[in-house]
Amino acid sequence: MINFTYYTPTEVVFGKGTEEKTAELVKKYGGTNVLIHYGGKSAQKLGLLDKITKQFDNQGLKYTLLGGVVPNPRLSLVKKGIEICKANSIDFILAIGGGSVIDSSKAIGYGLDYEGDVWDLFDNKGVAKTSKPVGAILTIPAAGSEMSDSCVITNENGDLKRGYNSNVCRCKFAVMNPEFTFTLPEFQTACGATDIMMHTMERYFSPDTDMKLTDSIAEALMRTVRDSVFDVLKDPKDYNARAQLMWASSLAHNDLTGCGMKRDFATHRLEHELSAMFDVAHGAGLAALWPSWARYVMNCNIARFVQFAVNVAGVENNFADPEKTALKGIEAMERFYKAIKMPTTIPELLGRKLSEEEILEMADKCSRGDTLTHGSFKVLKMKDMIEIYKLANK
Amino acid sequence: MINFTYYTPTEVVFGKGTEEKTAELVKKYGGTNVLIHYGGKSAQKLGLLDKITKQFDNQGLKYTLLGGVVPNPRLSLVKKGIEICKANSIDFILAIGGGSVIDSSKAIGYGLDYEGDVWDLFDNKGVAKTSKPVGAILTIPAAGSEMSDSCVITNENGDLKRGYNSNVCRCKFAVMNPEFTFTLPEFQTACGATDIMMHTMERYFSPDTDMKLTDSIAEALMRTVRDSVFDVLKDPKDYNARAQLMWASSLAHNDLTGCGMKRDFATHRLEHELSAMFDVAHGAGLAALWPSWARYVMNCNIARFVQFAVNVAGVENNFADPEKTALKGIEAMERFYKAIKMPTTIPELLGRKLSEEEILEMADKCSRGDTLTHGSFKVLKMKDMIEIYKLANK
Repeated sequence: MINFTYYTPTEVVFGKGTEEKTAELVKKYGGTNVLIHYGGKSAQKLGLLDKITKQFDNQGLKYTLLGGVVPNPRLSLVKKGIEICKANSIDFILAIGGGSVIDSSKAIGYGLDYEGDVWDLFDNKGVAKTSKPVGAILTIPAAGSEMSDSCVITNENGDLKRGYNSNVCRCKFAVMNPEFTFTLPEFQTACGATDIMMHTMERYFSPDTDMKLTDSIAEALMRTVRDSVFDVLKDPKDYNARAQLMWASSLAHNDLTGCGMKRDFATHRLEHELSAMFDVAHGAGLAALWPSWARYVMNCNIARFVQFAVNVAGVENNFADPEKTALKGIEAMERFYKAIKMPTTIPELLGRKLSEEEILEMADKCSRGDTLTHGSFKVLKMKDMIEIYKLANK
Repeated sequence: MINFTYYTPTEVVFGKGTEEKTAELVKKYGGTNVLIHYGGKSAQKLGLLDKITKQFDNQGLKYTLLGGVVPNPRLSLVKKGIEICKANSIDFILAIGGGSVIDSSKAIGYGLDYEGDVWDLFDNKGVAKTSKPVGAILTIPAAGSEMSDSCVITNENGDLKRGYNSNVCRCKFAVMNPEFTFTLPEFQTACGATDIMMHTMERYFSPDTDMKLTDSIAEALMRTVRDSVFDVLKDPKDYNARAQLMWASSLAHNDLTGCGMKRDFATHRLEHELSAMFDVAHGAGLAALWPSWARYVMNCNIARFVQFAVNVAGVENNFADPEKTALKGIEAMERFYKAIKMPTTIPELLGRKLSEEEILEMADKCSRGDTLTHGSFKVLKMKDMIEIYKLANK
């Protein structure tokens, strides 16, 4: 078991009507002049923009609105946000949306306190020492950014999607009302569930396999997500099932499910190149890659894949042939993805195969010209990345 | 599912050698002049006092030592601590020990910022708005105080044991090195494991039973503790098993296992009277009472006891007779307690039966003269408390 730090200072306020507490929370964490940052339709459709601006008006909070965040959030909007905040003396950023909006808000928060170009942080050229505070009203359970140390931004100049991890900009609070997810389309719901499970799978498939408590919590979370997504697809207004997904999105990525274990996160890195180049939905990209990653790496620790197959995928243990059981677990996950209409290959994701040149370009970017490895369950070099992309391209 | 707030700002630094980071952590959270608060033998036996004072000397931190905390920590020492801190301009309290030392430290932290008598807080006569910061080096996994909002103090003047819950004095950091628990005696280890499981059972037996994710995490935690305690009793230096108990102690009481559910905590309240009057070990007191509480309340929701029996106690589900399955779960817990040498009745705990007068006095104190109820799975009035004490007195 490796040593670990567990730090989740975000105040989660969960349940019906909790958005009513937003102004109070903003004030509690020092906000007086707020950038309300959001995507587009959903914040408006849910009536959240009206509700929050009225609440702020009534409680004497100043605010400036900035919408337009898109999935795979863009650096250009982050920079625009930084300029607007500077011009308006903003001291708090409120994200209303999912992971893209929260990540865009975190990046603005970083940028306001960082002297150089904020992209430096994502490009390993700088470190954030402080940031402006960020709070969130979550409307899409998926990325877990509301409680995680993660922030992922896409630089359109070169189709680069890069993450920056730091405790400096963890959300001060996260307001989570599962009712806000009732209108999420099937596709986004399924992408979210895939991303949630994957955040835990990226920790579960680790070289460290002796942390039973973390394992058992991780398996419990993955089973709950697996079951709840079907409840939600059957009845999108099932509050209880929506709540499981929403709370799981936070716990899957606040590091609870990785305590005492080295992270892998290779599938995430491989997917980032895919969504940076083709602007696909992150969850769908993960589903399209994971089965190929799994088949490529499973021999590094068959027992771990057997444990996953039995405890998460619900496969019977064939004690005589662990490899067979492990493979059945991967196949069960493929059936799960198909059942929630997620792709399990790149052609299913993009509607076409990748060319050899595209695969090389993605592997080159992912490995930064064969200088960077990813993963810990199996440490992937550029050549391994090429093989996994090829496997997923069939 | 009820709305909930989840707030666990404590920075946990877990693993071998993590005590080396103590001075750095104290400074990070604003400490310059520290009260080092501890119990007696263990902090010295472990060499922790020497290690930490040397570290503080080397890193320019001032400190004052205050030992002598006992189990069921006393109000008199808390008041002495407050005086010492005031006289020495202390700005940070470092607890080295288990729940008693951490609670004593929290109470000192409260007292330093509270204008009246600190006992007011525990007597429902005052509210803490701020407190001096507290950090902990945990040496006994049990109470979970290192991550919880709880603080329990015994007022010798009247044998009153009372708790105060507030986010104001959550530990800033918790240093947890499982090696520090290698020398814990069997009895304390078993008491600790009982307390850890009970912190989750007090949340699990709730009128709210629709939060699957919380349930599955709670069950995973209880099973892990149940198994790990035997590993530890077999080999006290089993780092991995000690680590499970230590991390479980924090997660069992930081509210993770109660999100979306009303707490019960009646067994804790009933036990507080027992340990206040007879100064027994809290964990042993809980084991002596829980089976009687369980039998008394199980009919409020047999299905919940069946779920516990099957998913935690490892009992086969007798679908034809839920009551039988529920009872078998309680009996399995009694066998578990016996196996780790915990009492399952009051006579086993005290070596004698309670008199009728003693039972009445305890129930009277617990219900504050029949004016206060406890529990939510079943709301207990004074007459119920008497019945449960009587059941446990056989």
